[in-house]
Amino acid sequence: MHPYLIDWRDRRKGKALCVALPANVEEVSRTMKVAAEEGQPVFPLGGNTGLCYGGVPESPADDKPGIVISLQRMKQIREFDAAANIVTVDAGVILADLHEKSKPYKRQFPLYLGSEGSAQIGGLISTNAGGTGVVKYGPMRDLVCGIEVVLADGRILSDLEGLKKNNTGYDLKHLFIGAEGTLGIVTGAALRLHPENTNDAHAWVSVDSPETAVRLFTEFQDKCGPYIEAFELVSGTEIDAVVRHIDRIRVPFDTVPDWSLMIELTATDPSVDLNGIFEEVLGENLENGSVLDAFIASNAQQAEQIWHVRHSVTEANKLEGMGLVHDVAVRVSKVPAFIARAKEVTAEKFPMATPLLVNHLGDGNVHYILMFPHDYWNQLSDPEQVMHDVQSCVHDIAASFGGTFSAEHGVGRKLTDELERLCDPLRYELMIGIKKSLDPENRMNPGVLFRNLTTGC
Amino acid sequence: MHPYLIDWRDRRKGKALCVALPANVEEVSRTMKVAAEEGQPVFPLGGNTGLCYGGVPESPADDKPGIVISLQRMKQIREFDAAANIVTVDAGVILADLHEKSKPYKRQFPLYLGSEGSAQIGGLISTNAGGTGVVKYGPMRDLVCGIEVVLADGRILSDLEGLKKNNTGYDLKHLFIGAEGTLGIVTGAALRLHPENTNDAHAWVSVDSPETAVRLFTEFQDKCGPYIEAFELVSGTEIDAVVRHIDRIRVPFDTVPDWSLMIELTATDPSVDLNGIFEEVLGENLENGSVLDAFIASNAQQAEQIWHVRHSVTEANKLEGMGLVHDVAVRVSKVPAFIARAKEVTAEKFPMATPLLVNHLGDGNVHYILMFPHDYWNQLSDPEQVMHDVQSCVHDIAASFGGTFSAEHGVGRKLTDELERLCDPLRYELMIGIKKSLDPENRMNPGVLFRNLTTGC
Repeated sequence: MHPYLIDWRDRRKGKALCVALPANVEEVSRTMKVAAEEGQPVFPLGGNTGLCYGGVPESPADDKPGIVISLQRMKQIREFDAAANIVTVDAGVILADLHEKSKPYKRQFPLYLGSEGSAQIGGLISTNAGGTGVVKYGPMRDLVCGIEVVLADGRILSDLEGLKKNNTGYDLKHLFIGAEGTLGIVTGAALRLHPENTNDAHAWVSVDSPETAVRLFTEFQDKCGPYIEAFELVSGTEIDAVVRHIDRIRVPFDTVPDWSLMIELTATDPSVDLNGIFEEVLGENLENGSVLDAFIASNAQQAEQIWHVRHSVTEANKLEGMGLVHDVAVRVSKVPAFIARAKEVTAEKFPMATPLLVNHLGDGNVHYILMFPHDYWNQLSDPEQVMHDVQSCVHDIAASFGGTFSAEHGVGRKLTDELERLCDPLRYELMIGIKKSLDPENRMNPGVLFRNLTTGC
Repeated sequence: MHPYLIDWRDRRKGKALCVALPANVEEVSRTMKVAAEEGQPVFPLGGNTGLCYGGVPESPADDKPGIVISLQRMKQIREFDAAANIVTVDAGVILADLHEKSKPYKRQFPLYLGSEGSAQIGGLISTNAGGTGVVKYGPMRDLVCGIEVVLADGRILSDLEGLKKNNTGYDLKHLFIGAEGTLGIVTGAALRLHPENTNDAHAWVSVDSPETAVRLFTEFQDKCGPYIEAFELVSGTEIDAVVRHIDRIRVPFDTVPDWSLMIELTATDPSVDLNGIFEEVLGENLENGSVLDAFIASNAQQAEQIWHVRHSVTEANKLEGMGLVHDVAVRVSKVPAFIARAKEVTAEKFPMATPLLVNHLGDGNVHYILMFPHDYWNQLSDPEQVMHDVQSCVHDIAASFGGTFSAEHGVGRKLTDELERLCDPLRYELMIGIKKSLDPENRMNPGVLFRNLTTGC
């Protein structure tokens, strides 16, 4: 049972009575009914790629360790409807497989993230996954048009038609999306497909400040909003780390820019002159001095060079030191002020740490990473406390700008304290009311999202 | 009080203890607290443009007639954030005013519907309004990024940051969107703005069948999905009615087509050759014979001619006879089969009626109108019963294709029987659970959505 009890980074291990591997929704339903009869908690498990321990089974009651339900055997792609642009899938389908199987239909399912070779659709729905495509296609929430869920009592709630318009009462699917398995188990989904892109362009732009980056984002939005596929802002400190640790990195400028914008434009129409758009917008800004330099990829290899840098961030940071990653978001217009304030405060409170910034700028999502040298970190007497202090500090600054402490990673078991601390108390109370309404015995992934609910909430 | 008690077509009149006209959210909150203390129902009222009597106050208890809360004085546009593409507004802002006030920022709020001169943002949110822009921008649900709501007990739930990413528990705003005032009163919202279009093209296409129309929709989606602003399919019977009753109608073909597609493409980028896309896609289909004829507007006046026809439908139908309108939706791929089946069944059951079809094809939304001659209708002994029979018949056919009986008009007080009859019983049960969780005394717009809840549900 071991692999079903640990988180993928092997940092936290739970326990369970048993692991169920149902092959279809009826088997999930029967398992849930047994769990209900026995009063056992249920821990849904997808691809186990979460970052907040939402997939680790930890029962609140020692005598009821609970059942892990893994969706891994539910891998059917049930139906492709290319005219309606809807694909209906089992929850256990792996994201990369769905990408692959959409190609013959000339469609894409535009959710792109690092763990796509393991992450399953059900988990991606339950955590409202994000990634690099959010600026163009939205998060998972915007890509789900219908779901099938097994409730705590084993009953099946299913609406997989995926109607674009349906105004007949409350839209329940949005409750389950992002609920991290606390309201039911997602067993199937109707997902929105998009046409394949046949046209793309890539640029690496050196800008003088986050303010300029936001202004450029607005200019690109006005000019060609629907073409923006990625709009990433990376600090020079982060690029330096990548250059230090990763092979085959080529920076197309004389020096590493203080602020790098990495931009991808895509279109379904091959006749759109995307490079022309780059030249027009960037040209004007080169003239007025806010863009310091710009590199527009002239072939696929050059494009790959740009994104190789961006995709090497995680690996480089592991080698660089002890990086404390934060996943905050503010309005895109507030990103520059947030960054300035966070740098100021953390420089004062944690002078040993260097801030590395990787931002999905188009979403206002700032991965604010405080990088401590290994030597310094290893001699700390209470590293957990420092981690906690840094986290509270960064989250508080985000909150002071109206931002969130978890943009795309979720809450899981890791951030339940932060949810209780930072969430509007009224919203927290309403969420618990909904939890009680749908799972009165608190058997669905107990301990995730809410810290203090006892069984039989 | 009269104008606050009737529906705008003067078909149904309610009653109330009084009408409150709060000027801000605090006044709404205080009013709600008084209502809570007195055990009075509350009936929120926006622009009173609904089609299902959701704004008519009808208390379930004779001794508690309830309070109408009109949002009409709450007209502030609180903040424009052009960089974040968010506008924050009071719920009483009228849609057309928001359109007007977005122009200086070169932004659009892309919700377009007939009643935009009266409809208010709060009502549009509470009914998840649709209209002609849904195919490109989604319904109101997709345009709301934050809301402020006053709950039944007078407490204010507010999140107007409108973060693009925020994974910290259940997304409560989606419960209130489309809830038709049964869970709380929407008093403010953060809304998503889009860049203005600077480029548009218009075509009227004669096609041989709904099947061809769907195939063309797919071709346009693949070629230029993000440009499709409107994709309307209208039957020849409907165009005939418009030609008969409305002035200045010009049909650019020798005869009225059996099936007319009216298509608008728009782009923010003025350099995109939208007419070229029309010529390319339509040219191929003219050659293979599925497109019978096509008219591409070569100037604004010709474009206006096309849309004048589409926008004259309601007025023409009033003069034509007694038209029973249905607002059903199925998957776009199922529209042709639904239309064929509906025509077959209604021809047999209601031979005196002519089906007129006006479809937001891109959304799978079919306004299936059965037109009875005035003479015939006026001699019916029980027209209510016929209306009811026709409605059940059309709704049942939609349901047999997995469709909905209310795509964009909502349920209100008009379709509560249909909701109870056609809704999945489990979904209905869960909706009532949520209603009880948020409004345990059933004081929020009682009688809307749910027929049989007694006060103190």
